Amino acid sequence: MHETCLIGLGAMGMGMARNILKAGIPLRGYDLSETARERLTEAGGRSFDSAVDAARGCDLLILMVVNAEQARAVVLTNGVAEVLKPGATVMLCSTVAPEDARALAADLEAAGLIMLDAPVSGGQVGAEAGSLTLMTSGPEAAYTRAQPVLDAIAGTVHRLGDKPGLGATYKVVHQLAAGVHLVAAAEVMALGARAGCDPEKLFGIVSTSAGRSWMYEDRVPRMLSGETDPASSVDIFVKDLGLVLQTGRDCATPLPLSAAAHQMMLAASAMGFGKLDDSCVIRAYEALTGYAAKTAEEE
Amino acid sequence: MHETCLIGLGAMGMGMARNILKAGIPLRGYDLSETARERLTEAGGRSFDSAVDAARGCDLLILMVVNAEQARAVVLTNGVAEVLKPGATVMLCSTVAPEDARALAADLEAAGLIMLDAPVSGGQVGAEAGSLTLMTSGPEAAYTRAQPVLDAIAGTVHRLGDKPGLGATYKVVHQLAAGVHLVAAAEVMALGARAGCDPEKLFGIVSTSAGRSWMYEDRVPRMLSGETDPASSVDIFVKDLGLVLQTGRDCATPLPLSAAAHQMMLAASAMGFGKLDDSCVIRAYEALTGYAAKTAEEE
Repeated sequence: MHETCLIGLGAMGMGMARNILKAGIPLRGYDLSETARERLTEAGGRSFDSAVDAARGCDLLILMVVNAEQARAVVLTNGVAEVLKPGATVMLCSTVAPEDARALAADLEAAGLIMLDAPVSGGQVGAEAGSLTLMTSGPEAAYTRAQPVLDAIAGTVHRLGDKPGLGATYKVVHQLAAGVHLVAAAEVMALGARAGCDPEKLFGIVSTSAGRSWMYEDRVPRMLSGETDPASSVDIFVKDLGLVLQTGRDCATPLPLSAAAHQMMLAASAMGFGKLDDSCVIRAYEALTGYAAKTAEEE
Repeated sequence: MHETCLIGLGAMGMGMARNILKAGIPLRGYDLSETARERLTEAGGRSFDSAVDAARGCDLLILMVVNAEQARAVVLTNGVAEVLKPGATVMLCSTVAPEDARALAADLEAAGLIMLDAPVSGGQVGAEAGSLTLMTSGPEAAYTRAQPVLDAIAGTVHRLGDKPGLGATYKVVHQLAAGVHLVAAAEVMALGARAGCDPEKLFGIVSTSAGRSWMYEDRVPRMLSGETDPASSVDIFVKDLGLVLQTGRDCATPLPLSAAAHQMMLAASAMGFGKLDDSCVIRAYEALTGYAAKTAEEE
């Protein structure tokens, strides 16, 4: 009998859990938060009081925890690896450094388990809609076991090779583009406001010209409305641009734009915006200039 | 009788000249290059051996020269202002710093002339197709005189106010986005190649995800094909990102991403790629890593 377990029922994990359940796949789960565990029960899943109890006897474990340290702690330190069914597949959906993905895969292999490296893109919206993009790599057997879950949560599944770590590599490199574009959007709006542009007109021009990016179009409206309720938080990009720089260091590639973008995200976090929407990086530019980007024309 | 003159018949100016002539507007013109002057004659315009002769008696002067220094030299130092019809409109299409646009407008006003600040976006392709985007500002009278030319060369004309300098401001701020995104595209491909991604797969993923930008989609194929024939050159972005930084300095706004991007463009120029396609900024990353971004999988 197949049993599936999902550990990490935050904004992303809970959206994925709902779509797995909707697809008719029985789901067990665990999260540190009792509220999150209750939400899984309400959605029709079975929640447990510990990761070990949730994972016991399962042949597919999905990890949607915050980072590589948490993934290692759950599976290796807490003993989840020992209670999974022998030969079970561990699907790592967290964004981690390629080196960390490879290291975890090796340790799981030594424990008789198979890892599917499967970081996701598309945010909370994509998780709830079942339309995530997954950048995956791993052996064929892992795909075979994970396929019904992949079908339930993803709009697109990129298969990038049979070695765990490749999925993480593509995801981290992608985050370089997303993170730099997000900070660039704030830099554009900050300079525009200071130089005398009307922010709405500037948005209209840049978002329809060669200067446009997906992040610019998506985040600038939130910078202008002052929305702080997090769709994705500043601290997620502090982490992800940190992984970009770590990956650059691991393969000896200097990344001047990523380094500058990371510093601005770190400033926004230091200012107290870490848990708020990542468009709050505009506040770091405002702090540097003493000038509100969104109210420039009113002064 | 209305007379129109265009000075600066390079890749951009010549495309604009052809569309002005196609619209049935008689056009006089001048360029330092004899070849360029001959091209204007072949296209049905009248070319002259000096800027002063070309501009004499005209009531609309279009400047498509390289920078503010050239614009000032042509109009003020060389005496073109004195031979234009009194009250003539000077339409400045070059990308210049907002401060320089304002200064030129003031000097032209003192000489009894009206300036239309009208930088263009859309490159050589847009110039040839008559589909340029113009970011314009200036008094109503300037628009009235320039309208037939605007109709002939532009797909979109943004009217941003009655003060010259605003057009330049929006254009320069737009170039921040375009320039940073271009260098970011190179940084993505450089890290991807070093970290073990297949460049074509990486392009397929990033260009359809939250990491995409107009510049990424447009320039990465040229980075991968090794195209160096310039659609727009490295030195144009050395100049434009320089204007971004100058504008930031003029209005006291620190721009960490723009500064880093400018350094990478400057490196590409220093390496000898200044006159080649701006996608050659990837070569600066290759120099920093001793690694060819486009041939990663072949090694």
